[in-house]
Amino acid sequence: MSLKPTLIDIEQAYERIAPHVHKTPVLTSSAIDALLDGQIFFKCENLQKIGAFKIRGATNAVFGLPEKEAARGVVTHSSGNHAAAVAQAAAWRGIPAYIVMPETSPVIKQKAVAGYGGQITLCGSTPRDREAAGQRLIESTGAHFIPAYNDARVIAGQGTVALEILEQVPDLDILITPLGGGGLTGGVATVVKSLQPSMRMVGAEPEAVDDAFRSKLVGEILTIDTPRSLADGLLMPLGDKTFPLIRDRVDEIILAPEQRIVEAMRLIYERMKLVIEPSSAVPLAALLDGRIDVKGKRVGIVLSGGNVDLGAFFEWMQGRIVRQ
Amino acid sequence: MSLKPTLIDIEQAYERIAPHVHKTPVLTSSAIDALLDGQIFFKCENLQKIGAFKIRGATNAVFGLPEKEAARGVVTHSSGNHAAAVAQAAAWRGIPAYIVMPETSPVIKQKAVAGYGGQITLCGSTPRDREAAGQRLIESTGAHFIPAYNDARVIAGQGTVALEILEQVPDLDILITPLGGGGLTGGVATVVKSLQPSMRMVGAEPEAVDDAFRSKLVGEILTIDTPRSLADGLLMPLGDKTFPLIRDRVDEIILAPEQRIVEAMRLIYERMKLVIEPSSAVPLAALLDGRIDVKGKRVGIVLSGGNVDLGAFFEWMQGRIVRQ
Repeated sequence: MSLKPTLIDIEQAYERIAPHVHKTPVLTSSAIDALLDGQIFFKCENLQKIGAFKIRGATNAVFGLPEKEAARGVVTHSSGNHAAAVAQAAAWRGIPAYIVMPETSPVIKQKAVAGYGGQITLCGSTPRDREAAGQRLIESTGAHFIPAYNDARVIAGQGTVALEILEQVPDLDILITPLGGGGLTGGVATVVKSLQPSMRMVGAEPEAVDDAFRSKLVGEILTIDTPRSLADGLLMPLGDKTFPLIRDRVDEIILAPEQRIVEAMRLIYERMKLVIEPSSAVPLAALLDGRIDVKGKRVGIVLSGGNVDLGAFFEWMQGRIVRQ
Repeated sequence: MSLKPTLIDIEQAYERIAPHVHKTPVLTSSAIDALLDGQIFFKCENLQKIGAFKIRGATNAVFGLPEKEAARGVVTHSSGNHAAAVAQAAAWRGIPAYIVMPETSPVIKQKAVAGYGGQITLCGSTPRDREAAGQRLIESTGAHFIPAYNDARVIAGQGTVALEILEQVPDLDILITPLGGGGLTGGVATVVKSLQPSMRMVGAEPEAVDDAFRSKLVGEILTIDTPRSLADGLLMPLGDKTFPLIRDRVDEIILAPEQRIVEAMRLIYERMKLVIEPSSAVPLAALLDGRIDVKGKRVGIVLSGGNVDLGAFFEWMQGRIVRQ
């Protein structure tokens, strides 16, 4: 079976995006290592351009377009980081970006999109509302649609994270990514299983939104009607391009209880001085809950992003959960 | 004239502390570069062990003690990062740390000290209170006193930041550090003027606490009776060991208005997803106020620490100044 993307696609993506994105640092905390009795290496995509790994996939997709097609601009719909990523990548290429965002999306994310020059169209909060608004924009502008994750070029871009961490940290035993739609996990798993197949590749999902866990178990894409979790970047179902990667290239999916997500955010804030969004905290949250044995192991974790409303962040840090 | 420390002292300090401290990343922000029309390289000591550069000096001082002297432990008095640094360094060496802290010091900093195994003695908030409590501890324990900044070994440790950034970023035109007691600035200036004497070495001070600026101007140590600034890590006067370094090895001292300090913190939070304490924001604050021309220049800035009470941080980010 031939799955997309391949390692070569991801290496080409890295060449394409490297002039634009940061090679993010890998940070460690001896306090967290002591707590878990293992060595944890955090790949800090919260310190990436636009504050999230999503810039990798969006940049690969935007710069992969032929000149003529690109000139008409790009469209996407997203509640968050992918929107900012497409706006930024389009600005780098000098083409228009039309971004459909739900009215309910955090102000900090709307501000970011506008700041990168994206033209925002607000819509209702259902997937159908977004798709309809996106479709209207495509028809009126002729712009090219860039999916948030169910796209080979986007997946290849996200996979470049793994090229970096495997070079930055030798001899990892386990690599864990947050798992939502599967773009990041699918891309990273492709690199891991190509370059270091004995490394354990793990996706981490909120226990409250365990659709990927169950999809992998039964061998087909399952969805959850009204997914709810603090980790609002991980609510999307798998797509037909990401599911096969999760099925075939991921060794295990682990689940994080909601309370542990806040605990993990607080730990990373207090011990590492890093602001991360809840989705980023899901892998560590699962480890804090003992969902996988990391004793004596070298474990990489991708901190996927840092775009969080500071008001909400403050509430969480104070132990008042406001978004459940 | 022979001043301490020399470049050799700092290189030896680096060898001594390297097994214990992080080599912190240098991060950039294109948004901040565009705003200032220059290239700014942030040396992220907020991501350092204990969340501040102070671990460098404390580790050099603690590990520089002869075995017999070290065995009786170490004492310091500090309202913050130096306290945590001495506690952590002592824990690494396996010796007791007796830490005098004012009752008014932030809870997050007291928690950190206790977390590293430091034995805390609370005292009143005047320098005299702290010194008296420290003296009593020295007498009762025989422990060795480690000053927060006015000490050649501490200064040498702080100077190791410069060895790293000069290697990480070639061809800097300007390097700016926050300037309080002068330990960091004095150590960094020593490296800069030894290795790249044409680089402009700048210290940045709150305008409200401009004692170092005026001290350099008149050629003797001036003090301010009741120094007040958001940048509470920069309230100390210069010492007899740091003043000559500031006088002879620093090219210029620039001043930051209080409002700009909050603006700089907010910019670094919003654009770089980094939590920094107000003292760290002082160099960027001075640049935002146009206090030095950085147009087309490559400018290094040391972000000195990230230990800030989250409640206060939230208030600042929301534009409500609570600590003036």
